[in-house]
Amino acid sequence: MKVLVTGIDGYLGWALAQYLAAKGHEVGGVDAYFRRTWVAEMGSQSATPIADMPVRLRAFEERWGKPLFFKAGDLTNWAFVKSVFEEFQPEAIVHFGECPSAPFSMIDVHHTTFVQVNNVVGTLNILYAMRDVVPEAHLVKLGTMGEYGTPQIDIPEGFFEIEYRGRTDRLPFPRQAGSWYHWSKVHGSNNIMFACKIWGLRSTDIMQGVVYGTRIDEMGDDDRLLSRLDFDESFGTAINRFCCQAVIGEPLTPFGRGHQRRGFLPLRDSMQCLTLAIENPPSPGEYRVFNQFEETYDVTELAQKVQKVANELGMNTTIHHLENPRIELEEHYYQPDHQGLLDLGYQPTHDMESELRIMLADLERHRARIEAVKDVLIPAIRWDGSRRKSQFIDSVPQPDLVGHSA
Amino acid sequence: MKVLVTGIDGYLGWALAQYLAAKGHEVGGVDAYFRRTWVAEMGSQSATPIADMPVRLRAFEERWGKPLFFKAGDLTNWAFVKSVFEEFQPEAIVHFGECPSAPFSMIDVHHTTFVQVNNVVGTLNILYAMRDVVPEAHLVKLGTMGEYGTPQIDIPEGFFEIEYRGRTDRLPFPRQAGSWYHWSKVHGSNNIMFACKIWGLRSTDIMQGVVYGTRIDEMGDDDRLLSRLDFDESFGTAINRFCCQAVIGEPLTPFGRGHQRRGFLPLRDSMQCLTLAIENPPSPGEYRVFNQFEETYDVTELAQKVQKVANELGMNTTIHHLENPRIELEEHYYQPDHQGLLDLGYQPTHDMESELRIMLADLERHRARIEAVKDVLIPAIRWDGSRRKSQFIDSVPQPDLVGHSA
Repeated sequence: MKVLVTGIDGYLGWALAQYLAAKGHEVGGVDAYFRRTWVAEMGSQSATPIADMPVRLRAFEERWGKPLFFKAGDLTNWAFVKSVFEEFQPEAIVHFGECPSAPFSMIDVHHTTFVQVNNVVGTLNILYAMRDVVPEAHLVKLGTMGEYGTPQIDIPEGFFEIEYRGRTDRLPFPRQAGSWYHWSKVHGSNNIMFACKIWGLRSTDIMQGVVYGTRIDEMGDDDRLLSRLDFDESFGTAINRFCCQAVIGEPLTPFGRGHQRRGFLPLRDSMQCLTLAIENPPSPGEYRVFNQFEETYDVTELAQKVQKVANELGMNTTIHHLENPRIELEEHYYQPDHQGLLDLGYQPTHDMESELRIMLADLERHRARIEAVKDVLIPAIRWDGSRRKSQFIDSVPQPDLVGHSA
Repeated sequence: MKVLVTGIDGYLGWALAQYLAAKGHEVGGVDAYFRRTWVAEMGSQSATPIADMPVRLRAFEERWGKPLFFKAGDLTNWAFVKSVFEEFQPEAIVHFGECPSAPFSMIDVHHTTFVQVNNVVGTLNILYAMRDVVPEAHLVKLGTMGEYGTPQIDIPEGFFEIEYRGRTDRLPFPRQAGSWYHWSKVHGSNNIMFACKIWGLRSTDIMQGVVYGTRIDEMGDDDRLLSRLDFDESFGTAINRFCCQAVIGEPLTPFGRGHQRRGFLPLRDSMQCLTLAIENPPSPGEYRVFNQFEETYDVTELAQKVQKVANELGMNTTIHHLENPRIELEEHYYQPDHQGLLDLGYQPTHDMESELRIMLADLERHRARIEAVKDVLIPAIRWDGSRRKSQFIDSVPQPDLVGHSA
């Protein structure tokens, strides 16, 4: 199948390009290299050394025996998006080409506006290009479990059947996102649902959990094929950050009480799930939502798992809670469904400890790169609008909710 | 109270400025005059002749004895918004400064993107300006009943308490908007709800029904104080358009089967409701939603009401259904709550026929202005992406849903 991956230079994009090529799909990609710029703005770098796109493209062709169609450009530019669709004629589009950071979106008015406009407009341009150029194609859109927030009821996959005052309907599940970035994903989901309804487009909207992992097997041993791995406060995610902290001998740092519960999955599972979605498209006009994660975990439990594996490898790892820069519930009900992908054949890895061992070994090789900018591991961007480094806390605070509550 | 009205040059904005002045409030306003440009783009003009802002400001000062603070500028410009807030120091902000048209947002990718970016960014800038300059101020945001769409259950005011799989929660009511414009209002509502939560701002989000009417009593007989009244397919609303059609002897044109049911209210009731919201602000951190309309009506019933009053005035008025350019249910359940404003003291006018008599008399004076561009009364912007004038239909079609359905 001809699959266009937007944001192909990113953490998921570059891994997916290789996973799809290994399965025999024809891969194309676009990227404006914004992720590299944003991480530099945070004063950070990828823990893994990443090649520039021309070198990546050469290595990709050497490994998979065929070139990757690639165009550098900005998805908010309609003329660019339309020309790429006309030239590549994708059968599926995997849309990763958004700014994926909650803290980055909370910095100030300019970052908030940038993230929402960038993400909303890029998605609108893709929807119009689908309508005008490839109306039968399938949009696989990367959303986030963070769109739902943490309601006190179970979280279905996108829609739920409810009874209200004696009548019933099937409705979109209410979203309660926790950052301007997460809301940009909700805005995108809403726009996609509407485009499917009025234009008969088909889309799978992936509410993805937090991904961790340094590699997929398909990358082999060629460092030019490595995907990036970020650990700064804006672009690093929980387990990846914990592993980077372990490798350089810094404490692992859950925020606040540390009982935030989220869905997680390894990079290889993310690739498996996305490919299942791509290879099993919905019907024309169908807007389908999958909650994509392997299992839910409490953040402190995860820190303890990383600590255990790291200590087995001889790293003397500690856990030290930090003031929470976010406004979020630190202990809450969390019961999201995740049946859709299992029904399509998803086989969860279910072996976090092996994955952590691979990650710690990979990151050990690049220890100096993490060490070089290690102050980025401590967050400073606060949800209340101020900006100062979080302090370590010695007794974990007890209030159920930090900050204002609706 | 010091009230800043964004979009003060518009249909509601200019009327509200006078209504608030009559009540003794100190009014400020901003506008970029976009509405005038958009209506010109549609090949139309206001049925009422409207003065330019400098003339309006002079007439306002003559009538109310004090000047109106006014700045011309674009709400998507952060520096402009911040400077206005710093200079005027509003206690309440009534945010009308958005592009308010469903058809306009459906024209093409450029209009879709413009409407969503304009509306989202303007609102974000206002939220940030409130946080940084007047954190105690109250944002009265104009949303629309169209955010909810037409679910098969009752529509509460913004939030509902539900039971799902044996647990209960109070959640935002799911939105199912029917155009890119209506979704831009949903994006705005979501962003405002979040700003109230994290920054402790206070806001009333008004889900307003369709407004009709040519005047409020406060305008007196000074034509320089008249508000605009649009009748083109993009910026005209149902009853206003029907009255314009009656005055020039054209048939009134419900779309499709014509049993779309919506909430409606006269301009004078809208002013009364908005002022009640302004004068009774919510608590800090509270995000409050009101459904603002007097009663729900079937569009064909409304056409018949206009026809009856017009015929009493000697106009030989007919009704002729048009092909529906929209994708929407043409017959559906519709039961929205509207208790919040009644609890604050809203006294509905409940006399549509008197209002229609006033409107038809007002419009009769400006008949030549409507006649001059009367082809704009027939819609051409279609939800499927094409553009052609709707044809009259002789037998009203029976299918429940035109076009694709989710």
